This record gives sequence, structure tokens and C-alpha cells, in this order.
Amino acid sequence: MSSLPTGIDPAWLPDEVLRDVGSRRVLVRGEGPLADTLRGEVAYACRKFGGAQVTGDASHDLCFDLAEGGDEGPEGFTLERRPGLTMVTAADPAGLLYGWFHVVRLGESAFTTAPAQTHRPAVALRMLDHWDNVSVHPVMGQVERGYAGGSLFWQDGRARGDMARVRAYARLLASCGINALSVNNVNVGPVEARLLTDRIEEVAALADEFRVYGLRVHLCVSFAASMLLGGLDTADPLDERVRAWWREAADRVYAHIPDFGGFVVKADSEGQPGPFAYGRSHADGANLLADALAPHGGTVHWRAFVYNHRQDWRDRTTDRARAAFDHFAPLDGRFRDNAVLQVKHGPVDFQVREPVSPVIGAMPRTRVAVELQVTQEYTGQQRHACALAPMWAEVLGFRPEGEQGPSVGELAASGGLVAVSNAGDDPFWTGHPLAQFNLYAFGRLAWQPDADPGRLLDEWLESTLTPARTDDPERLRAGVRSVLAGSWATYEKYTAPLGVGFMVQPGHHYGPSVDGYEYSPWGTYHFADRDGVGVDRTRATGTGYTGQYAKPWSETYESPETCPDELLLFFHHVPYGHVLHSGKTVVQHIYDTHFEGVEEAEAARELWSSLADLVPEAWHARVAERYEEQVRSAREWRDQVNSYFLRKSGVPDRYGRRIH
Amino acid sequence: MSSLPTGIDPAWLPDEVLRDVGSRRVLVRGEGPLADTLRGEVAYACRKFGGAQVTGDASHDLCFDLAEGGDEGPEGFTLERRPGLTMVTAADPAGLLYGWFHVVRLGESAFTTAPAQTHRPAVALRMLDHWDNVSVHPVMGQVERGYAGGSLFWQDGRARGDMARVRAYARLLASCGINALSVNNVNVGPVEARLLTDRIEEVAALADEFRVYGLRVHLCVSFAASMLLGGLDTADPLDERVRAWWREAADRVYAHIPDFGGFVVKADSEGQPGPFAYGRSHADGANLLADALAPHGGTVHWRAFVYNHRQDWRDRTTDRARAAFDHFAPLDGRFRDNAVLQVKHGPVDFQVREPVSPVIGAMPRTRVAVELQVTQEYTGQQRHACALAPMWAEVLGFRPEGEQGPSVGELAASGGLVAVSNAGDDPFWTGHPLAQFNLYAFGRLAWQPDADPGRLLDEWLESTLTPARTDDPERLRAGVRSVLAGSWATYEKYTAPLGVGFMVQPGHHYGPSVDGYEYSPWGTYHFADRDGVGVDRTRATGTGYTGQYAKPWSETYESPETCPDELLLFFHHVPYGHVLHSGKTVVQHIYDTHFEGVEEAEAARELWSSLADLVPEAWHARVAERYEEQVRSAREWRDQVNSYFLRKSGVPDRYGRRIH
Repeated sequence: MSSLPTGIDPAWLPDEVLRDVGSRRVLVRGEGPLADTLRGEVAYACRKFGGAQVTGDASHDLCFDLAEGGDEGPEGFTLERRPGLTMVTAADPAGLLYGWFHVVRLGESAFTTAPAQTHRPAVALRMLDHWDNVSVHPVMGQVERGYAGGSLFWQDGRARGDMARVRAYARLLASCGINALSVNNVNVGPVEARLLTDRIEEVAALADEFRVYGLRVHLCVSFAASMLLGGLDTADPLDERVRAWWREAADRVYAHIPDFGGFVVKADSEGQPGPFAYGRSHADGANLLADALAPHGGTVHWRAFVYNHRQDWRDRTTDRARAAFDHFAPLDGRFRDNAVLQVKHGPVDFQVREPVSPVIGAMPRTRVAVELQVTQEYTGQQRHACALAPMWAEVLGFRPEGEQGPSVGELAASGGLVAVSNAGDDPFWTGHPLAQFNLYAFGRLAWQPDADPGRLLDEWLESTLTPARTDDPERLRAGVRSVLAGSWATYEKYTAPLGVGFMVQPGHHYGPSVDGYEYSPWGTYHFADRDGVGVDRTRATGTGYTGQYAKPWSETYESPETCPDELLLFFHHVPYGHVLHSGKTVVQHIYDTHFEGVEEAEAARELWSSLADLVPEAWHARVAERYEEQVRSAREWRDQVNSYFLRKSGVPDRYGRRIH
Repeated sequence: MSSLPTGIDPAWLPDEVLRDVGSRRVLVRGEGPLADTLRGEVAYACRKFGGAQVTGDASHDLCFDLAEGGDEGPEGFTLERRPGLTMVTAADPAGLLYGWFHVVRLGESAFTTAPAQTHRPAVALRMLDHWDNVSVHPVMGQVERGYAGGSLFWQDGRARGDMARVRAYARLLASCGINALSVNNVNVGPVEARLLTDRIEEVAALADEFRVYGLRVHLCVSFAASMLLGGLDTADPLDERVRAWWREAADRVYAHIPDFGGFVVKADSEGQPGPFAYGRSHADGANLLADALAPHGGTVHWRAFVYNHRQDWRDRTTDRARAAFDHFAPLDGRFRDNAVLQVKHGPVDFQVREPVSPVIGAMPRTRVAVELQVTQEYTGQQRHACALAPMWAEVLGFRPEGEQGPSVGELAASGGLVAVSNAGDDPFWTGHPLAQFNLYAFGRLAWQPDADPGRLLDEWLESTLTPARTDDPERLRAGVRSVLAGSWATYEKYTAPLGVGFMVQPGHHYGPSVDGYEYSPWGTYHFADRDGVGVDRTRATGTGYTGQYAKPWSETYESPETCPDELLLFFHHVPYGHVLHSGKTVVQHIYDTHFEGVEEAEAARELWSSLADLVPEAWHARVAERYEEQVRSAREWRDQVNSYFLRKSGVPDRYGRRIH
């Protein structure tokens, strides 16, 4: 195992977490690259902490072994803790490696007696999408929506070539359960398109690093590649020349990367080419690529993020929230088995609060992957602390058909859980050190969608800021839990209220602009006037979006009486005096939450400040600096939003607080 | 004279305008480069139209001659039209050259008998500022606020070297009376700073081209040049090392460009360095450079555009409109004789409607230059037709001390009239062909600030789309007059109402965003709420800005009863129901003007369309394309502004027109 490059924070894998396993006598059985990786892990830990890697029949107190006939599946493992011997067994070396990281997490308790447990990932595909550009995009930069420095993979048009860092990243991802990633942006530019053909070796070099930790590499491709790269005059998915071109393209990719994961495609969306140009459906488009990949066992991830981004704000009949369902639900059953429809978890775009996308529950005959956004585009851009696991847990636990039906986490098992990465070449990986938790939690939730976010926070905290790194672990734990556990709720309080969304500055999406998207072509409106605010998406009087849900949600969301408060303005246009279930009026709720949100951010800043003696200095300083900006920004949000609604409604704050 | 590069529109100097002079026998007396230029002009015209340039005592019907003892001044000329002989006399070849272009403008009537007339520029310095960057700025591009393609001078970090085009540009500028220009952006980046030192030869090469048409070249410099380029640890204007460095820098510049005009400086403004860092005044700063330039006869243009652009919108005591006066009026009398304070014509930033800056009338012991903006940053960015001469004529005719005092045009005689250029490497020079008129009119108004804008429009029209280029000159004249004469008023109608300004999209400033700057640090607010709109700048209850004016304006603007309607919201916050002098309420005025503005833009588009048979095809097509965008944009303005105020005020349009 390569050691980490100097100056790179080890995130949740500091050497200290290896102490308990590294002091044992460890036996690893099995062959192949993943078994070799595991042996490298063991050797490193034992070198560090005085244990020994043993072979053959030598005595040992920790054993990793392959076993046939179990029910672990390809990536699962069984952990047995007997007196004097802890055993991890799996059907496949991948399971042993996941078992290793599990034992590392358990630490000392891995060596106490306990009943045998089998662990299996609930979701087969657990994938990170990197929106990394190869060349620097004039507007979006090296990493689109990246807030953690440069790309880990690309720099100024070339492969970055820092393989030690890539390997360290692969290890981090494997340790939290991620097993796939795409290495370039879904918005595929002309330079990036060539990764598919004459630059495939650069992708293969990355795949070599990820493979040893069990991750398969995927590639975002341009739907127009047959024209851009193949010299054809069409990209029509039913044209035999196009189909042949894609088959050959896939063959070439697999010649370089035998375990290549597949393609990711954003088509007919925000300017990207797609099948609509040829009068073909998105199923036709996806199946074109699926057929090319099928002989090799690859999968196409076809994104459902298709909507009209040249909308006229004056046209109230168009509703961006409806778009994915309207486009895709009618295509259910028409996608190939190796085509996955990748759906954003909400119907709009990763806002701090959205309902669950109705597409997820509407396509039983289609493999659906659910896409989350680890990078904090709309949740503070890694300048604000915002732990997203509670939001994701809510999404994954949502049951589109009500209590009797499957959860989103269960539905996603067919296609996968996918997230946009928040990692870059920042020394802390994620810009804001506390944002490491988002990356970690995504991986763990993808493995187990019903995991408790609080437990994951503790897990991350234990391994990231372990007792060995601090003097007062109890105070540290309590402090970090306190600043992170409610941070999503805090962020929601001081930003756009009650699910209305999109009150951000246009383009870069940081900071408040209440009307920033109100008259825009992007379909992102709140319709605030002097009387009220919100979007009427009912069947009775609005855009009819509520009708895209099955019962009970189609009924629950239809009426402001039953609609949950936190989504009220997403579904309804109501007067400022409308009384919420909480007993407050809408406008007073807006004032109250904005004052509270700032107070909570200020309290978190103070609490973090009090932890200075317990956290490594550089780590503490970086977080402290981010809290300064978070508090400044939260006050700006509070004051702009409150002023906006005071100016519009004329309703004074019942507590007489200062609104500008 | 070089002929024009192929594909470049000759603007207001097509060969046809030379017909009347080019068919004569012409005698030019005098020596030196400007006399040579004049001879080149004459030779070209005569070659083209069958006349002859004669020498010595040969018979002639047009004569240019130097004469001592007249009262023409250094650039003026006297025109005598006797039977059979038209004579231009001047004290200097520059006067003869201006006389030539005057005769060209007169055409046939230059050869009819008339009393002798002497023409002198009312303003000695008539200058264009180019906000051209040498290297491409990541946000602002090659030309900051440029809407006419690339720079005429610079490209991707290098001198462009297209000297034929530069010469053609010099000719155009001289022909409308401009005699100076700065060749780089007032925001001086690290690359641009070096034009002062090791890249001065690139400036000298431009000066060589402009010199032959009587223009002196100026350079924008960084106030921190002594540090950036000189290796000093300070830019303190009272530090003797700094003073010595600037003296030597000026000496080197003049060694390359003996007639160099001087420096232009934006200091302590929008991030540019300045004397405040050293606790020095702007007079200290300006005098530092003035002293360095004085031995060579150069002038420093010190911009008064100094304000806090990190303002807190919550702080209502700060008023950006006050800033220039507050900074500079106390310094009156403290500037050197060769220091000119360059003041934007309004107190904010080139909005479609602003009052005249109170600085202009407040510094009798300071040379003041008035800065206009020919490039249409806030007036449609050369996608909208907006002839600005009527606005400038209003500004120049304004009398800061009332009817008995001098006009702005007269006050500017001490320092100059300066404008930000709208020209670039676009084939039509200005992007929108009709925007050529703005460039032309600026030059002509700088020569004669009380010239009638309508007469200038006719002048420009006659020379640009002359009878020889069209079949029906009368219909063409009537048509172009109709679309241009009222175009500023039209633009004002469909954009920000009643002087309130700054309802543009942040950053690029194109298109509407009513709240775009409402919560920004730039100090650009309208304070609209459900009851009213506007900025209270009175002494009685507001920011006190009205007190920066002398009487009668300090009184006129103080009361909403006497404040002109078109400036009402600049000076007062009033209820939507406030009745204007026009008899309309403020909100009904907003609705009415926005509907009217769009109707006028639509009518202009139709009228232009009807001129297709009369205008060269490429010219017509370009303007027609711009009108499509203007109408689209005007409708967007109308609908956003009207919706905004309907949503806020709740007052319906009295005519029941559609507001979204």
C-alpha cells in the first residue's frame, strides 16, 4: 500500500485507526489483486503497530479467508468473533477487503466475543460521479461545482498523473464502501469527449489505481460522439452506422480496461446533445449505448435530468418539477437490462429541501439509480458546515407508495446509489474538513440505506479524530456532534424557506438572491407578491405535479392542510398569513427560522472555537475560517430574506427584531 | 493616406463624401506631418473623383493655407467661400486638417458663396478612453464593457499590429474632432502596467499612427507602478524615491513618444491601488504624476470615480452618489495645473438617467474633465439602438449654478471632454452600425458642446448613408431620424423608471433584474417595498446628497414638488400613488412607459425593416438582427419591471393590460 503524500490529510483513515488490528497476528488467505491489496493493508498496519502478518498454519488472532457456500454475495462478508480469534470470511476477495475496513472501524471491539454477523451491501452499485473537466472550462473551471481545489485526475487539459493521490483516494472510497466512479464531467466538452477514443489510456491509468481497491471506472460520453469523434454525419441511435461506431468504441475501451464500468450520459439537457434531435426517445438513446456495452458486461447510466432550460417565466403552464416524470415515466419497460436511469433525488436540482422525485417510484420495469449531491452546490459550497446524511436518510427512507411499499433505498437497489463527489486536490480533500463526513456518509448509506445518520456521524468522528489525536475525546465528540448533527436543519433555516428553493445568486449559486431566478429561463420560481408566496403544483388549480405521485402522497401533497410544513411552498401558493401546522404564520416562520438559523450558526462557530485545544491545529484553523464565512453569509441570508418578505408583506416581526 | 482594410465599413467616411471636394483643383500649403496627411487626403479624393492637387501658383478652387495673426487658435480654422474660391486658413496644420473634414461635411455647399466663418473647438482636450486590456481578463475579456468585438490595439497579451486599421480609426476620430485617446483600460492589470516601461514601444507604435491625424496618445497607469515595476516597497506619493521613479518613468516615455499626452489614473477605486494606503490625499496622488509629467508638457487625468464598493446595503447612511463630491470637493485648489480631475457626468455610473454630478460645478480652482460613456454599458450594449447625443446635450447644457452660471460644457473647457470608446475590431466598428452615431456625436459635441443633437444626427446620416449609396435619400433620412432621434427616450421608457437606475443584471449589466443590485455591496439601491420606491437623498430626511448642489438645484431637487419627474426616484422615496407633474401616479407611469417603450421599439424595428431597399445589405441585416434582440429584450424589461411593481404594489394597470 502506498503511503499518503505529505501534506494530505488522511481523512477517516489516520494510522491511529489501525492500532488495534496492527498489533495482532493476522492471516490473509486468497489470491488476486484485492487479496494483495488486503495483504498490503495488513503489512502496513502491523509494521506500524508491532503485529505480524503470518502465513500457512501459523497461529493468529485475526484471519481473512475465502469460503464457498455462504450467503455473503460478491461483496459481503461474515464476521465471527470467538475467544482468541476473529474471522472474516467471504466468497470473494472484495468481501475480505470490506471486512478489513469493518474490523478497522470496530477497533478493539472487533476482538471481543460476539455472535457471527453477515454484512452485505444493500445496493450493488455505489458510485461517485466526478464533475471534473479535463480542460479548464471558461465558466465552470476545472471542476464543475467543485469546492475543494483542483481535480484529482485532470489539470489544464492533461492527466494530472499524481497516482499516489489517486491511490489514496481509492483507499478512502473503498473504506466507506464505494465501488464505482466516473472520472469526468457529465457535461462533456470537445476535449473530454476524446477520453472515449484516443485518450482512453489516461482513463485506463486511473482504472489501474482504482481496481486494486475494488472500484470500477466509468466514463461520461457525449451522445454526439459518433459525429464529434467518428466523423459520421449523425448520432441517430437507430442508424446502423452509429450503432456500429459505438460497438467498436466500446470494444476499444474494453481492450484497455477489461473491467470498465460503463458510460454515463447527460443527453438533451442544458445544451448537451441527445436523441431528441433525431425524433428518437431516450430509451432509444440509452439502448444504443447499452447494446454496445452489453457484450462486455458494462452498464449505461442515463441521466433523467432532462428539462426545458429555455423556459419563459411568463408561461405558468410549464413546471420544471414535472419534466423528468413527463419525459421518462412513459418509457418504463423500454430500457435494456444493462441500462440504468439515473434520477436526481428531488424533482428540481439538489435544493436544501425538495420532495422525493416521483420518477423513482414510477418505473417498476426500469432499473433506477438515485443521484445525490455530495458536493455542496446548494448547501453552502463547503464554506458552510452542512452534514447531509440526515437529508439523504430521509430521502432513502421515503416510501413512494406509502408505508406498505418499498423505500427509495430499496428501489435504488435495482440501479444503484450515485453521488456527485465533493473531493479535490485540497489538502483536506473536501475544502471544508467537516465536509469529509458527507463523502463518508454517502458511501456508508449506499452500503446500508437505512443506517442511522447519527451512528454514521459517530463512526466518522471516531475514525477521523480518534482518541489518539486528542486529549479529551468525550468533549471533542460532544462538540463535533453538536456542530454537525443539526447543521442541515440550520442551513435550511437561514436559506430558502419551506421548500420553495432557488433563492440563490444566479450562476455560481452561492449566497442569497431572493429574486435571482425569479424571472429566469431555468424554471425556478417562487411567485412571491405582496399577498403570498409559493408554487401551486396541485392538480386542482396548479401545474398538476402532485398527480405524478402515487397515493397517499398525491393526496397528502395536494392539500395545504396535509402537506408537510417543510414542503408547503414547494406545492402551494399561500398567503403570508397562512397558519402552518406549527401554529405560526408563514411570514412569522420565515422571520423566526432566519433569526434562529443565524443564532445556531453563531453558536456552532463558538463551540468549534472552544475545541481548539483538541483538534490538530491546521484542521481546526481551516474549519474556524470557514465558520467565519458561514456566519457572515448566514447573516446576509437572514437579512436579505427577511427584508425581502417584510418589504413585500408589510407584516412586522411579532418580536420587533431588526429587519432592514 | 492608407485605404481601408477590406471588409471594414467606412462609417461616416465612405468615398462618396469626398466627391464634391475630390472633383476640384485643390492647393495645400504648409509643412509637417499634419500638412502631409492633408495632402494625402486631397490626393486620394482627387484621384477618386477627377480633381487635381495643385502646387505653387496654379489656379485652384479650394485652398488650405496657414495664416498668422488670426484668432483661430491652435486647432481652429476660418472658412471663406468666395465666388470660385473656397479658402481654409488656420494658424496650424491641425486647423487645416479639421477644416478639410469640415469642407468634406459641407460637400457641395462648401462651394457656394457665404460669409467667412471661424470655427474653434470649445474644448481643448477631446479624448476617447479605451477600456482595452492587453491580456484577456478572465471576467471582463479583451475589452472591458466592449460590445464591438476585440480590441483595435491588443490581442491575447500582445500588440495586435494591424496598423492599417489603427490608421483608419485615427482618421475617423480626427474627422469628428477627437484629438486624444488612451489606449488601455483604467483597470490596469499586471500585464498592462508594463506598457509604461518595457512595453512602451508598443504604445509608441500606436502613437505614430495617431499622430498623423492630430491625436495624442495617453496611457493608463497603475498607481502602484513604483512597486509593481520599480521594485520599491512603497507607492507613497510623498516618498522621494517614488517621486524619482515616476520622473524617470515619464522621461523614458517621452524619449519614445515626444508628444505623449499623459497618464490616466483610476486610484483607490474598485480594487485599484491609490494614495489612501499611505494616508495621502488624491491631490497628493495626482500631483505626484503631474510633477513627473510637467517637464514634458504632459497632463495627468485623475478619475473622480472613487467610492466604497464594499458597502453594506443595510447601512442607509452611506450613499454612493455622495462619494465623489465628498472625496474631491474639499481638495479644490490643491491640484497642479497639469492635473485634470476626470468626473463622470452623473454621480453614480452612466445610468440611462442621472442628475449631473455636483462635483463638476463645485471645483472652480481645479481643471475638470467630464467623462461620458459612448460604449453602451447601461444603454443596451450596442444590441439596442440608443442614440445618446440628446442625453449628452442635456448634460452639457446643464448649468450647476442656474441660468446665470456657466454650463457643464463651458466648465469642461478647463479639463476636457472624455468618453469611453465603443469601437472595436467589429466590421462595423461599433457592433451595432447605428452606434457609430454615438462615437461621431461625442466628437462633434466635444468640439461644440452646444451643438444641436438633431443637426448632428443629420450630419452623421448624410455622410454615413449618403445619397450616392441609396435610391431614396429622403425616405432614408426620415426613416433613420425616426428610429434614432427618440431612441434614448425609448430605452429609458422600457428600463429603470424615473431616474432610479441600476435594475440590471449583476456583473454584465445587460437585461433586467429589478433586485439585481438591491442587496449588493455596490451601493445601488431602489428600496422598493409594498408601499413605494426610490432613494431619499434629501437633506431633510435622507442622505443629504441634495446639499451637494448649489442653488437653485439644491432646492429644486430637495422637494418632490419641484424635482423633475424624470429624476424623482433618484432623489425621493415616494408612494406608488404619488402623482407626477404629468398627472399620472408613479406606478401607472411605470406601467405606461414600459408598454410605450416596447411599442416604440417594435415600431422602430418595423420602420427599419421598411428601409431594406435603401441601405447596403450587410448594414441593413446587422441592424435588423439587433432590432430583433432589442424587441425581445425590451419585452423582457417591460414584463419583469411591470410584474415586479404589480406584485409589490398590488395596483392594477388602469387599462387592464397584461402584466404577468
